[in-house]
Amino acid sequence: MVSARNILLLSSSRLHGHGYLEHARVQLEDLFKSASVKTVLFVPYALRDHEKYTATVRNALEPWGYNVEGLHTKPDLEKALKEAQAIFVGGGNTFVLLRTLYQLNLLDLIREQVLQRGLPYVGSSAGTNVATRSIHTTNDMPVAYPPSFEALALVPFNINPHYLEPEPGSQHKGETRDERLEEFVAYHGLPVLGLREGTSVRVQGEKATLLGDRCAKLFKPIGGAEELAPQTDISFLLQK
Amino acid sequence: MVSARNILLLSSSRLHGHGYLEHARVQLEDLFKSASVKTVLFVPYALRDHEKYTATVRNALEPWGYNVEGLHTKPDLEKALKEAQAIFVGGGNTFVLLRTLYQLNLLDLIREQVLQRGLPYVGSSAGTNVATRSIHTTNDMPVAYPPSFEALALVPFNINPHYLEPEPGSQHKGETRDERLEEFVAYHGLPVLGLREGTSVRVQGEKATLLGDRCAKLFKPIGGAEELAPQTDISFLLQK
Repeated sequence: MVSARNILLLSSSRLHGHGYLEHARVQLEDLFKSASVKTVLFVPYALRDHEKYTATVRNALEPWGYNVEGLHTKPDLEKALKEAQAIFVGGGNTFVLLRTLYQLNLLDLIREQVLQRGLPYVGSSAGTNVATRSIHTTNDMPVAYPPSFEALALVPFNINPHYLEPEPGSQHKGETRDERLEEFVAYHGLPVLGLREGTSVRVQGEKATLLGDRCAKLFKPIGGAEELAPQTDISFLLQK
Repeated sequence: MVSARNILLLSSSRLHGHGYLEHARVQLEDLFKSASVKTVLFVPYALRDHEKYTATVRNALEPWGYNVEGLHTKPDLEKALKEAQAIFVGGGNTFVLLRTLYQLNLLDLIREQVLQRGLPYVGSSAGTNVATRSIHTTNDMPVAYPPSFEALALVPFNINPHYLEPEPGSQHKGETRDERLEEFVAYHGLPVLGLREGTSVRVQGEKATLLGDRCAKLFKPIGGAEELAPQTDISFLLQK
């Protein structure tokens, strides 16, 4: 079956010099227009204060003409997701977010809605991590223990959000981001897309494209990495 | 029962401008002398190449007069640990290390040897993380899924190795280390000791002391943080 995917995976919700989500406005509006979205269902579980977090997103999206509702306010989560016009899964702590999705038994439901019904999905940072096959490539501190690192698998590869190069000349001896990602590849033999702040991945069915004005760095399953320019077609990563 | 602890927990095995373990030589020798240690049993599971990793440690410690053996070369792990004069658990990936300790069923055994027999324990980075109550405050990427984040609990608090301040003026929008540690505290209500590179914690029975020439930053269970000077007695952290 051809997937009904209609997905936007952002590296981050903030970009230096821009307001909250502002850098992604065109990409968000393009996604929402494609499905005539008027109301966005926000999934706030990656942060502690769900109400405040939903208000932040509302303050960003309402001036652009979208209503925002918090999933945490819905008495029937299944009904809310089945009726949603679009969902936005916000960033915060990836471990907390995934644990909560498991606790609320939402993974199969969200997966089904996105892959079969074509529910538009926007993820940012942790919300991007959980959209991929697993959270093994999150940058977050493991403050919560989820029952598995396996995630929604809306796409079959891993993403590292907030990807950045090692600081040149740093005296710090902790591992660099590249070393950590190479370690993941060495253990799993799977690709990881390092997604710099301000960039994103747009998935429509079986087509995936890099968006934004910076390159993404693809860490290959066989080792090594390559820079991919904005607008590159990365549909090959959708093939398992 | 008074604990027989004889422990040295290093933030890192490397410090800018020094050779491998060189910055910690006096602290290591002090620990080893206290128990007339001639041979150190090295636990190399945090990195992939156990043989090469053991050779690195051997090259550092042999010139100082210590033999180094790799636990991975021992046919009977239980016997090796029960007969060991000291163990050194090296850094690498904390998730891989803890998962391996669980797979080999070594946690209870090591805990018993350290707390009851007084087996000298040296940890560095990931080896320090697994010595504490849990690995919730590791900086590492979760490339492996251990059956729990609970660890050896040789000390009842958490440590963040390679602790460093946020970069002033950074344009990066990912979370800072302090934000991550404050998040842990918010979820768990437990203290974390941010241990800068080059510093360490020495535990002798019920006494714990900060070593090194930089302050450590204690994130308090009730929120907030304080800087603790070198040589500060932090035995209060040993009380559960």
